[in-house]
Amino acid sequence: MLIIKIGGGASINLAGIVDGLTEVREPCILVHGANALRDSLAEKLRSPKQVITSVSGYDSVFSDATAIDMILMSYAGLRNKRIVELCQQRGINAVGLTGIDGRLVQGARNKGMRVREGGKTLIKRDFSGKPKDVNVTLLRLLLDNGFVPVLTIPICDEQGCAVNSENDDIVTCLHTALQADKIIQFIEAPGLLADPGDELSTFSHLTRGDVETQEQQASGRMKRKLLAMKRLLDAGRASIVIADGRGESPLRDALQGAGTQIE
Amino acid sequence: MLIIKIGGGASINLAGIVDGLTEVREPCILVHGANALRDSLAEKLRSPKQVITSVSGYDSVFSDATAIDMILMSYAGLRNKRIVELCQQRGINAVGLTGIDGRLVQGARNKGMRVREGGKTLIKRDFSGKPKDVNVTLLRLLLDNGFVPVLTIPICDEQGCAVNSENDDIVTCLHTALQADKIIQFIEAPGLLADPGDELSTFSHLTRGDVETQEQQASGRMKRKLLAMKRLLDAGRASIVIADGRGESPLRDALQGAGTQIE
Repeated sequence: MLIIKIGGGASINLAGIVDGLTEVREPCILVHGANALRDSLAEKLRSPKQVITSVSGYDSVFSDATAIDMILMSYAGLRNKRIVELCQQRGINAVGLTGIDGRLVQGARNKGMRVREGGKTLIKRDFSGKPKDVNVTLLRLLLDNGFVPVLTIPICDEQGCAVNSENDDIVTCLHTALQADKIIQFIEAPGLLADPGDELSTFSHLTRGDVETQEQQASGRMKRKLLAMKRLLDAGRASIVIADGRGESPLRDALQGAGTQIE
Repeated sequence: MLIIKIGGGASINLAGIVDGLTEVREPCILVHGANALRDSLAEKLRSPKQVITSVSGYDSVFSDATAIDMILMSYAGLRNKRIVELCQQRGINAVGLTGIDGRLVQGARNKGMRVREGGKTLIKRDFSGKPKDVNVTLLRLLLDNGFVPVLTIPICDEQGCAVNSENDDIVTCLHTALQADKIIQFIEAPGLLADPGDELSTFSHLTRGDVETQEQQASGRMKRKLLAMKRLLDAGRASIVIADGRGESPLRDALQGAGTQIE
């Protein structure tokens, strides 16, 4: 089984990725983002991201009900269905789903964050959470009948609420449940970079040890990405590729060895 | 089997309808609109409906790619997933799908309309079409495994494109394929009205003959609705109810005889 994660950057070549999918013969699941689309929609609707700062000084996006509406429109609506359409136009029978459809991705809602407001310490709880489990029955039902699931956020919390989550964690959950042979992640770079400012510094191969070393040296978003990679490596044996989603044939190139290959 | 069609008006009580669904024991499919939501989003995004006039003087909404984007955000994204969420919160394992997911509703794209522009007669073709067939395999797969499909536009044309369509026609297609026992349509009125301006003029019972008579006398949107009802009656034997979606318990009331019952 192949799991393909498609980043939500504006310059990802979705049609090019789906072109490559027509040549894949094994069962496949797509997981996609849409952050550029969400940000652009939120700006047009004058509904910017809310960031709150915890008492311990940690910044975090606060997903209120309106933020979930934005996710539903951009991820679950526009991006998900346009990817399904790209598949259908190429004879791939895709089915687009979020984590709340059939409780496909079930999670635990975050407990909230301690913040200082008006001289008081409050717990502020948003609609976000961590995926814990996937509905393998529904996924198998689709895969065994020749459908290609196309998944995205939100996921489903304990009460059936739609909550925001990280697609990286969803991929790890899928891999834990289904043990993929190969996982390809498309990003807006040629692969993992030794120097974030230099695309020529792409690692061609990394071991688990290399990922750990890099993670210790990295900071910010890259550190989070590398931590997610460690968790993915822990979830089961698979060949993992981080590849450029911007080229003409991103999937074909990734299957032929482009990007950063992690064993 | 029960098919429930939920109109896209702003005052439909979605939670109230889903409350009633928890008491339904037979397999069920929901089909919903979102026109009020779409119109409000389109206004905020300054992307109003385009209307074109054919050479024969017939006005028609022109669904360009942007109009399909609006449908994907409002129908397939926000409204569909919030209905799925209402279901999940009540223990109903809903799966939200559009017609392009798994080619669930396949149709024929409209050929285009002859219009006069700049002194010339042109054919203008948009992304709209008529549903012709449903993917019974996928629907049965979901229904037989205890899922409640929640369906909406767009549908899938011959080339795999997402196209706009009428939910009334989708319901007729579903009924043709699955032969429902009961079909309930929720609208923003107590039922079919003899006088569109007077809610006290609700028909409590109508026969097929009555529907034909009313259709001959009606005009505009009501005539189209009654024509759709005639086609639905032709698609197979079922008990059909047109009921108020605005009350506290719309589904419970409709199952207990409220609205217009058509045999």
